[in-house]
Amino acid sequence: MNAFEKLLKAQADRSSLLCVGLDTDLNKIPEHLSKKGIAGLLEFNCEIISAVSDYVCGFKINFAFYEQYGAEGIDLLKKTFDYIPNSHFKIADAKRGDIGNTSRAYANAIFDYFRADSATLMPYMGVDSIQPFLEYKDKLNFLVTLSSNPGSFDFQRLVFEDQPLYMHVLNKACKAGNKENIGFVVGATHPEELKNIRDMAKDRFFLIPGIGAQGGSLDDTLNANRNSPCIIAASRSIIYAGKESDFATKASDASKLLKEQIIEIQKRF
Amino acid sequence: MNAFEKLLKAQADRSSLLCVGLDTDLNKIPEHLSKKGIAGLLEFNCEIISAVSDYVCGFKINFAFYEQYGAEGIDLLKKTFDYIPNSHFKIADAKRGDIGNTSRAYANAIFDYFRADSATLMPYMGVDSIQPFLEYKDKLNFLVTLSSNPGSFDFQRLVFEDQPLYMHVLNKACKAGNKENIGFVVGATHPEELKNIRDMAKDRFFLIPGIGAQGGSLDDTLNANRNSPCIIAASRSIIYAGKESDFATKASDASKLLKEQIIEIQKRF
Repeated sequence: MNAFEKLLKAQADRSSLLCVGLDTDLNKIPEHLSKKGIAGLLEFNCEIISAVSDYVCGFKINFAFYEQYGAEGIDLLKKTFDYIPNSHFKIADAKRGDIGNTSRAYANAIFDYFRADSATLMPYMGVDSIQPFLEYKDKLNFLVTLSSNPGSFDFQRLVFEDQPLYMHVLNKACKAGNKENIGFVVGATHPEELKNIRDMAKDRFFLIPGIGAQGGSLDDTLNANRNSPCIIAASRSIIYAGKESDFATKASDASKLLKEQIIEIQKRF
Repeated sequence: MNAFEKLLKAQADRSSLLCVGLDTDLNKIPEHLSKKGIAGLLEFNCEIISAVSDYVCGFKINFAFYEQYGAEGIDLLKKTFDYIPNSHFKIADAKRGDIGNTSRAYANAIFDYFRADSATLMPYMGVDSIQPFLEYKDKLNFLVTLSSNPGSFDFQRLVFEDQPLYMHVLNKACKAGNKENIGFVVGATHPEELKNIRDMAKDRFFLIPGIGAQGGSLDDTLNANRNSPCIIAASRSIIYAGKESDFATKASDASKLLKEQIIEIQKRF
């Protein structure tokens, strides 16, 4: 079973498009854990993973939050990946992309060392910069196309020959890989553009962040996406739903609620 | 002394614009070291650093090559950074860029944990994605503008409103930071464009990779750059100049030769 099939199965088994982002921050986890330092971060992640796993199809782990602690942080990152059940889709949210031999080393790190199912990638350096990731035929990558942040207005929307840059990225990437090895990151903060992008790539998986803390509307997003394959990623609104010792229960409740909201909205289509 | 001043001093003290890239690969280092594994990689880096330091202004360390070994690799990366004398400029070639709170964590990793003087950054997600790096007022970042690889033709040269994307990136970034905290990565494989980019940003530091293994011409590059501030980065052509036990001497000779070639060519201007 390749990563694409694994993701479809994980979504079907739990009736959930939701993926939880483990952007774990020492300053935001409950005090009884933060005072333990890195060990507390691991405990937090493990409790969150166990608490929400019935309601989510996978986990997205943001490398930055771990890299800031150096070798200890990478050890924590590895242990977090290993703790996620193999039934769940594992996304390395690292936004990598570099010249060929460098990208190959990044792909080794993500797929061979961390054993992720998926990596997020940056398009700026072109197709050859993501090619080493596509050479892992059994993995599903997500290329940043239209990001959820304010800076997405700086370059991604510049229009060249009647099409914005993000459409050029989408079109070129669709030729470089098939639906089983390349999908796209499209922020929930751009529902109108999401609809247009969708029309160009109906069968591709979209990884959609920006619901919750970043202000994207779940309703507008799902309405734009319709029934095409997607992952709805939420992080801070789930993992920090509670700040006390009952944080795991609160996260579980928040993920269950969001999963059910998604199902409710999807019923309309 | 901020990173910008440190770089100027390092270049003046050694009369060198050359920076050596430590893209260290277990498959390419001499056998007597590769058989020791990670410890051999550290030994290789330390010997190279010592051997070339009289001829270079700094070192550029490519994170990918270390990340593939997980926590042990990050430990090696940290020890390599620590081994570089403080007289030399230290570039974290990590090509980071993400939404604000994530970029902040990446900046923490690079500047607080590894204590680099400089980071390479990706522009695709816009100004707010690099802002946390610019908030470190004493650091000098390099934003990828026109990269050295074939994929630089995929998106970077698309023309929007009479200017290629890389010029939009340059102009927007020049407004976001000053010459002491933001410079640009421009590949040596595009000497004509380098000249045009130079005309738009005469006082900015350019980090120029692509000489050597990637085929860029030193002569054309320096001719296009003239006397504006730049770093010439070379990696494989220096660190793998020798494959036997005399690799450090060979690297030293190769760096001395390249440093002198740069001086010779610069004399013409």
